[in-house]
Amino acid sequence: MKIIRLNELEKEKVSMEGARKVSKQVPISKNDGSPNYSFRVFTIDPDGHTPYHTHPFEHLNYVISGKGVLVNAEGVSNEIKAGEFALVLPGEKHQYRNTSSAELFVMICAVPNEYE
Amino acid sequence: MKIIRLNELEKEKVSMEGARKVSKQVPISKNDGSPNYSFRVFTIDPDGHTPYHTHPFEHLNYVISGKGVLVNAEGVSNEIKAGEFALVLPGEKHQYRNTSSAELFVMICAVPNEYE
Repeated sequence: MKIIRLNELEKEKVSMEGARKVSKQVPISKNDGSPNYSFRVFTIDPDGHTPYHTHPFEHLNYVISGKGVLVNAEGVSNEIKAGEFALVLPGEKHQYRNTSSAELFVMICAVPNEYE
Repeated sequence: MKIIRLNELEKEKVSMEGARKVSKQVPISKNDGSPNYSFRVFTIDPDGHTPYHTHPFEHLNYVISGKGVLVNAEGVSNEIKAGEFALVLPGEKHQYRNTSSAELFVMICAVPNEYE
Protein backbone atom coordinates (compact mmCIF):
# COMPACT_ATOMS: atom_id res chain seq x y z
CA MET A 1 0.00 0.00 0.00
CA LYS A 2 1.29 3.41 -0.96
CA ILE A 3 -0.04 6.98 -0.84
CA ILE A 4 1.38 9.29 -3.50
CA ARG A 5 1.33 13.10 -3.59
CA LEU A 6 1.74 14.85 -6.96
CA ASN A 7 3.90 17.65 -5.57
CA GLU A 8 6.50 15.06 -4.52
CA LEU A 9 6.85 13.71 -8.05
CA GLU A 10 9.24 14.80 -10.77
CA LYS A 11 7.60 16.63 -13.69
CA GLU A 12 9.05 15.87 -17.12
CA LYS A 13 8.45 17.88 -20.30
CA VAL A 14 6.81 15.77 -23.04
CA SER A 15 9.06 16.04 -26.10
CA MET A 16 7.01 13.76 -28.40
CA GLU A 17 6.42 15.28 -31.87
CA GLY A 18 3.10 17.17 -31.95
CA ALA A 19 3.05 17.85 -28.20
CA ARG A 20 3.13 21.51 -27.15
CA LYS A 21 3.53 22.80 -23.58
CA VAL A 22 2.79 19.42 -21.97
CA SER A 23 4.46 17.85 -18.95
CA LYS A 24 4.07 14.43 -17.35
CA GLN A 25 4.17 12.88 -13.88
CA VAL A 26 3.71 9.18 -13.09
CA PRO A 27 2.07 8.64 -9.68
CA ILE A 28 1.43 4.87 -10.13
CA SER A 29 3.20 2.38 -12.41
CA LYS A 30 4.89 -1.04 -12.44
CA ASN A 31 7.80 0.63 -10.59
CA ASP A 32 5.42 0.80 -7.58
CA GLY A 33 4.36 -2.83 -8.07
CA SER A 34 1.11 -2.05 -9.88
CA PRO A 35 0.38 -5.36 -11.65
CA ASN A 36 -1.73 -4.18 -14.61
CA TYR A 37 -2.22 -0.47 -15.05
CA SER A 38 -0.48 2.90 -14.62
CA PHE A 39 -1.74 6.36 -13.70
CA ARG A 40 0.08 9.21 -15.43
CA VAL A 41 -0.82 12.89 -14.96
CA PHE A 42 -0.45 15.31 -17.86
CA THR A 43 -0.39 19.07 -17.33
CA ILE A 44 -1.14 21.11 -20.46
CA ASP A 45 -0.30 24.82 -20.22
CA PRO A 46 -2.53 27.47 -21.84
CA ASP A 47 -2.25 27.15 -25.67
CA GLY A 48 -0.80 23.67 -25.27
CA HIS A 49 -1.95 20.33 -26.66
CA THR A 50 -1.06 16.65 -26.81
CA PRO A 51 -0.18 15.09 -30.20
CA TYR A 52 -3.08 14.34 -32.57
CA HIS A 53 -2.24 10.65 -32.81
CA THR A 54 -3.25 7.01 -32.40
CA HIS A 55 -1.73 4.13 -30.46
CA PRO A 56 -2.62 0.48 -29.93
CA PHE A 57 -3.78 0.90 -26.31
CA GLU A 58 -6.66 2.65 -24.58
CA HIS A 59 -6.72 5.72 -22.27
CA LEU A 60 -8.96 6.11 -19.25
CA ASN A 61 -8.99 9.81 -18.35
CA TYR A 62 -10.19 12.00 -15.50
CA VAL A 63 -9.82 15.79 -15.67
CA ILE A 64 -8.43 17.09 -12.35
CA SER A 65 -8.57 20.80 -13.22
CA GLY A 66 -9.11 23.22 -16.07
CA LYS A 67 -11.10 23.00 -19.28
CA GLY A 68 -10.27 21.96 -22.81
CA VAL A 69 -11.36 19.81 -25.70
CA LEU A 70 -10.87 16.21 -26.68
CA VAL A 71 -10.60 16.07 -30.49
CA ASN A 72 -11.97 12.86 -32.00
CA ALA A 73 -10.93 10.83 -35.07
CA GLU A 74 -13.12 13.01 -37.35
CA GLY A 75 -11.45 16.19 -36.09
CA VAL A 76 -14.48 17.24 -33.99
CA SER A 77 -13.66 19.01 -30.69
CA ASN A 78 -15.66 17.84 -27.67
CA GLU A 79 -15.61 20.07 -24.59
CA ILE A 80 -14.29 18.49 -21.42
CA LYS A 81 -13.63 20.05 -18.04
CA ALA A 82 -12.62 19.38 -14.43
CA GLY A 83 -14.58 16.50 -12.89
CA GLU A 84 -15.30 14.72 -16.18
CA PHE A 85 -14.11 11.33 -17.47
CA ALA A 86 -13.19 10.12 -20.96
CA LEU A 87 -12.49 6.79 -22.58
CA VAL A 88 -10.32 6.66 -25.73
CA LEU A 89 -10.28 3.18 -27.30
CA PRO A 90 -7.20 1.52 -28.86
CA GLY A 91 -6.57 2.90 -32.36
CA GLU A 92 -8.86 5.96 -31.99
CA LYS A 93 -7.14 9.14 -33.22
CA HIS A 94 -7.39 11.83 -30.53
CA GLN A 95 -5.90 14.98 -29.07
CA TYR A 96 -6.35 16.96 -25.85
CA ARG A 97 -6.16 20.77 -26.16
CA ASN A 98 -6.20 23.32 -23.35
CA THR A 99 -8.72 25.99 -24.40
CA SER A 100 -8.12 28.33 -21.45
CA SER A 101 -5.82 31.33 -21.85
CA ALA A 102 -4.86 31.32 -18.17
CA GLU A 103 -5.60 28.01 -16.41
CA LEU A 104 -3.67 24.75 -16.55
CA PHE A 105 -5.47 21.66 -17.88
CA VAL A 106 -4.51 18.71 -15.66
CA MET A 107 -5.69 15.15 -16.22
CA ILE A 108 -5.13 11.57 -15.20
CA CYS A 109 -4.30 9.34 -18.16
CA ALA A 110 -4.48 5.67 -17.15
CA VAL A 111 -2.93 3.07 -19.50
CA PRO A 112 -1.85 -0.60 -19.41
CA ASN A 113 1.45 -0.73 -17.55
CA GLU A 114 3.42 -2.15 -20.49
CA TYR A 115 3.13 1.34 -22.05
CA GLU A 116 4.40 3.30 -19.05
CA MET B 1 -14.34 7.80 -27.64
CA LYS B 2 -16.72 8.81 -24.92
CA ILE B 3 -16.94 11.67 -22.40
CA ILE B 4 -18.69 10.80 -19.14
CA ARG B 5 -20.15 13.16 -16.52
CA LEU B 6 -20.67 11.86 -12.97
CA ASN B 7 -23.95 13.71 -12.47
CA GLU B 8 -25.44 11.76 -15.38
CA LEU B 9 -24.66 8.39 -13.76
CA GLU B 10 -26.82 6.32 -11.45
CA LYS B 11 -25.59 6.19 -7.84
CA GLU B 12 -26.05 2.86 -6.08
CA LYS B 13 -25.78 2.24 -2.35
CA VAL B 14 -23.03 -0.27 -1.48
CA SER B 15 -24.67 -3.03 0.56
CA MET B 16 -21.56 -5.20 1.05
CA GLU B 17 -21.04 -6.30 4.69
CA GLY B 18 -18.79 -3.85 6.54
CA ALA B 19 -19.61 -0.91 4.28
CA ARG B 20 -21.32 2.07 5.92
CA LYS B 21 -22.76 5.11 4.12
CA VAL B 22 -21.00 4.34 0.82
CA SER B 23 -22.37 4.70 -2.69
CA LYS B 24 -20.92 3.76 -6.08
CA GLN B 25 -20.96 5.06 -9.64
CA VAL B 26 -19.21 3.42 -12.61
CA PRO B 27 -18.07 6.00 -15.17
CA ILE B 28 -15.93 3.58 -17.25
CA SER B 29 -16.18 -0.22 -17.56
CA LYS B 30 -16.33 -3.07 -20.08
CA ASN B 31 -19.91 -1.93 -20.79
CA ASP B 32 -18.33 1.11 -22.47
CA GLY B 33 -15.86 -1.08 -24.36
CA SER B 34 -12.93 -0.50 -22.00
CA PRO B 35 -10.68 -3.49 -22.79
CA ASN B 36 -8.76 -3.89 -19.51
CA TYR B 37 -9.72 -1.64 -16.64
CA SER B 38 -12.69 0.08 -14.99
CA PHE B 39 -13.07 3.39 -13.16
CA ARG B 40 -15.58 3.32 -10.28
CA VAL B 41 -16.29 6.32 -8.05
CA PHE B 42 -17.10 5.76 -4.38
CA THR B 43 -18.74 8.47 -2.27
CA ILE B 44 -18.37 7.97 1.49
CA ASP B 45 -20.63 10.14 3.63
CA PRO B 46 -19.40 11.63 6.95
CA ASP B 47 -18.92 8.76 9.48
CA GLY B 48 -18.92 6.25 6.64
CA HIS B 49 -16.33 3.68 5.62
CA THR B 50 -15.65 0.89 3.13
CA PRO B 51 -15.27 -2.70 4.43
CA TYR B 52 -11.97 -3.59 6.11
CA HIS B 53 -11.21 -6.42 3.70
CA THR B 54 -8.93 -8.04 1.14
CA HIS B 55 -9.48 -9.19 -2.43
CA PRO B 56 -7.32 -10.79 -5.11
CA PHE B 57 -7.04 -7.65 -7.28
CA GLU B 58 -5.41 -4.24 -6.91
CA HIS B 59 -6.94 -0.75 -6.53
CA LEU B 60 -5.55 2.39 -8.11
CA ASN B 61 -7.13 5.34 -6.30
CA TYR B 62 -7.38 9.09 -6.73
CA VAL B 63 -9.20 11.24 -4.15
CA ILE B 64 -11.49 13.73 -5.92
CA SER B 65 -12.69 15.54 -2.79
CA GLY B 66 -12.71 15.40 1.00
CA LYS B 67 -10.31 13.90 3.50
CA GLY B 68 -10.07 10.56 5.24
CA VAL B 69 -7.77 7.71 6.10
CA LEU B 70 -6.61 4.59 4.33
CA VAL B 71 -6.20 1.85 6.96
CA ASN B 72 -3.44 -0.64 6.13
CA ALA B 73 -3.09 -4.38 6.88
CA GLU B 74 -1.59 -3.65 10.33
CA GLY B 75 -4.56 -1.45 11.27
CA VAL B 76 -2.59 1.79 10.91
CA SER B 77 -4.56 4.79 9.57
CA ASN B 78 -2.79 6.85 6.90
CA GLU B 79 -4.21 10.29 6.14
CA ILE B 80 -5.28 10.88 2.56
CA LYS B 81 -7.04 13.87 1.03
CA ALA B 82 -8.27 15.45 -2.20
CA GLY B 83 -5.62 15.43 -4.92
CA GLU B 84 -3.74 12.39 -3.60
CA PHE B 85 -3.26 8.92 -5.10
CA ALA B 86 -3.04 5.47 -3.52
CA LEU B 87 -2.09 2.00 -4.67
CA VAL B 88 -3.50 -1.04 -2.81
CA LEU B 89 -1.89 -4.30 -3.99
CA PRO B 90 -3.77 -7.61 -4.45
CA GLY B 91 -4.32 -9.32 -1.08
CA GLU B 92 -3.53 -6.22 1.06
CA LYS B 93 -6.15 -5.71 3.78
CA HIS B 94 -7.41 -2.11 3.66
CA GLN B 95 -10.25 0.26 4.44
CA TYR B 96 -11.16 3.83 3.49
CA ARG B 97 -12.78 5.95 6.22
CA ASN B 98 -14.20 9.45 5.88
CA THR B 99 -12.82 11.45 8.83
CA SER B 100 -14.75 14.65 8.14
CA SER B 101 -17.95 15.36 10.05
CA ALA B 102 -19.41 17.42 7.21
CA GLU B 103 -17.72 16.80 3.86
CA LEU B 104 -18.14 13.88 1.47
CA PHE B 105 -15.09 11.76 0.67
CA VAL B 106 -15.15 10.99 -3.06
CA MET B 107 -12.56 8.83 -4.83
CA ILE B 108 -11.83 7.03 -8.05
CA CYS B 109 -11.21 3.32 -7.51
CA ALA B 110 -9.76 1.74 -10.65
CA VAL B 111 -9.75 -2.07 -10.93
CA PRO B 112 -9.29 -4.76 -13.61
CA ASN B 113 -12.53 -4.93 -15.59
CA GLU B 114 -13.27 -8.56 -14.69
CA TYR B 115 -14.13 -7.28 -11.19
CA GLU B 116 -16.52 -4.53 -12.28
